[in-house]
Amino acid sequence: MADNSAPVPFEAGAGDPKHAARATRSAGRKMRSLLLDAASPLFRERGLSGASITDIAAAANAFPSQITYYFRTKEALFVECACRELLYLARATEQAALTARTPREYTHALAETVTVGDSVAFFAEALTLTRRRQDLAPLVERTIERLHSEGARAYASQVERHGWRSLRAPDESSRRFWAVAIGVILEGYAMGRSPEELCAEMLRVLGEQAKSTGEAARLRLVEEHGTSTTSDGEG
Amino acid sequence: MADNSAPVPFEAGAGDPKHAARATRSAGRKMRSLLLDAASPLFRERGLSGASITDIAAAANAFPSQITYYFRTKEALFVECACRELLYLARATEQAALTARTPREYTHALAETVTVGDSVAFFAEALTLTRRRQDLAPLVERTIERLHSEGARAYASQVERHGWRSLRAPDESSRRFWAVAIGVILEGYAMGRSPEELCAEMLRVLGEQAKSTGEAARLRLVEEHGTSTTSDGEG
Repeated sequence: MADNSAPVPFEAGAGDPKHAARATRSAGRKMRSLLLDAASPLFRERGLSGASITDIAAAANAFPSQITYYFRTKEALFVECACRELLYLARATEQAALTARTPREYTHALAETVTVGDSVAFFAEALTLTRRRQDLAPLVERTIERLHSEGARAYASQVERHGWRSLRAPDESSRRFWAVAIGVILEGYAMGRSPEELCAEMLRVLGEQAKSTGEAARLRLVEEHGTSTTSDGEG
Repeated sequence: MADNSAPVPFEAGAGDPKHAARATRSAGRKMRSLLLDAASPLFRERGLSGASITDIAAAANAFPSQITYYFRTKEALFVECACRELLYLARATEQAALTARTPREYTHALAETVTVGDSVAFFAEALTLTRRRQDLAPLVERTIERLHSEGARAYASQVERHGWRSLRAPDESSRRFWAVAIGVILEGYAMGRSPEELCAEMLRVLGEQAKSTGEAARLRLVEEHGTSTTSDGEG
């Protein structure tokens, strides 16, 4: 990324085309970001049909034409907002899980973080929209790829750091986590569930992801004695 | 349920109020069913916003006022269509899995059946809608309860019949299956994936549900020798 944080000079570079182009790019990035910031809470609260371009422009202190200039359509803006929020959430889950000392704490921190806000429900609405707007699919695809690759990397590094025994490949763990999050949260929001209920349901549905070294040894012992017949040791 | 299949008499019961009431109920059920049949393919194809009450009435050879009489709003009709289709799909998965001889075949039959059509994506759209229309939540809630209770019952009976060793409680298996189906299918539809790709991703994300007796014995052997360190035997 170029110097994102550089201040935008006023009346920049009348005599310096390169400088002017850079200033324009930087101003453009700022305006895009401003529009995304203004649109996200409106879309989250009211959904796609409940927020108009006029509302969003007013909230951003901008003109409707600026929205269509930067995003072309309200649908494209919606999907870009939702993708951005999901990647913010992914980073937040990673942060929240950093201090976990056991696989159980790790999964709990992830589940708690994704169920506390509505970013996953927002993203699910963007997925439904994209189904009929395949021109928006590339952004969704890049977002999901990044979600899984960063999730798998974060999980693998935690497993390695603590010496846990993962029950499945990191990439599969990450894919399962996000698929379950979408399914459980979409169901739960429709039924008016609280964040605590959503978190409990996520943990129940996810099952165990990994075992600490001690747990792995105990599991082996139970298997040897042949007493574990209906559970995989989660009870 | 009353005698659903009884023919509706013409000019029924001018002198028999009970008979007339029954005939009206039966005709009402038929009209409701007719409207649901006509609306479902239109909603599936075009989504909520793409199909108008006028379109649906025309497809059902009915008046728009009949739709509002039986369902009040287009949104309520949409959610009822989607719930009905999901329960049909649940029955179809159960049927498809009846002939499975191993846990792997069983899961494969389920995954193949849910990914071949768009009923899950249709239902996911209804979930998104219901999030902001909590008056429609009771129907969604009943549908999900029925989905899980019938899923758990079907799975438990298969496990019992074949003497498989289930890796988790039947209710948890069913909840995981449908949450994963919603998550994977919603993601996949947004990215324009084929049914085959969706099915493969579902199997990958779901992981193993149960082991046949032979597999369970082999697993025990592997665990004893301590050679299984990063997978739960799905290799």
